[in-house]
Amino acid sequence: MCESNAYLKNGENDIMLMESVDTIEPYEDGLKLMDIFGKQLFIKAKIKDMTLLNHRINLEEICNT
Amino acid sequence: MCESNAYLKNGENDIMLMESVDTIEPYEDGLKLMDIFGKQLFIKAKIKDMTLLNHRINLEEICNT
Repeated sequence: MCESNAYLKNGENDIMLMESVDTIEPYEDGLKLMDIFGKQLFIKAKIKDMTLLNHRINLEEICNT
Repeated sequence: MCESNAYLKNGENDIMLMESVDTIEPYEDGLKLMDIFGKQLFIKAKIKDMTLLNHRINLEEICNT
C-alpha cells in the first residue's frame, strides 16, 4: 500500500498528524487530508515537502499574522 | 514502489508531466519535483489534489494575472 503518514512541524519536533493518508487537497485556507479508511481531517497548514518513497508528508501550520 | 505520476491540467486534458515522482517541495512561486532517478523539474504550478493509492498527483499552473 502506498499511503503516507502526515507530520506537522511543531518547533523542532514533528507531530504525527494522520496515518495512512491517501488523498490531499487544498481546502479554503488549509488542506483536507483523507486516510485510507475515509476519515477526513481539515487543517490550516501547507505542504512543506513530501517524499513518497519514505511515505512521509511534512506539513507546517499557516500563521495568520 | 510508491512513487506517483504528476499530471498538469491543460484545459480539459491532463498532460503527463513527470513519471515516478518521489519528492515534492514548494519552490519560490512553484514546485520542485524530483523523480526516483534524481531528475529535477521546476514548474510554476500548485497541487490541485493527489491520491497516493492511485499514484496520481494533479497539478495546475499558476496564472500570473
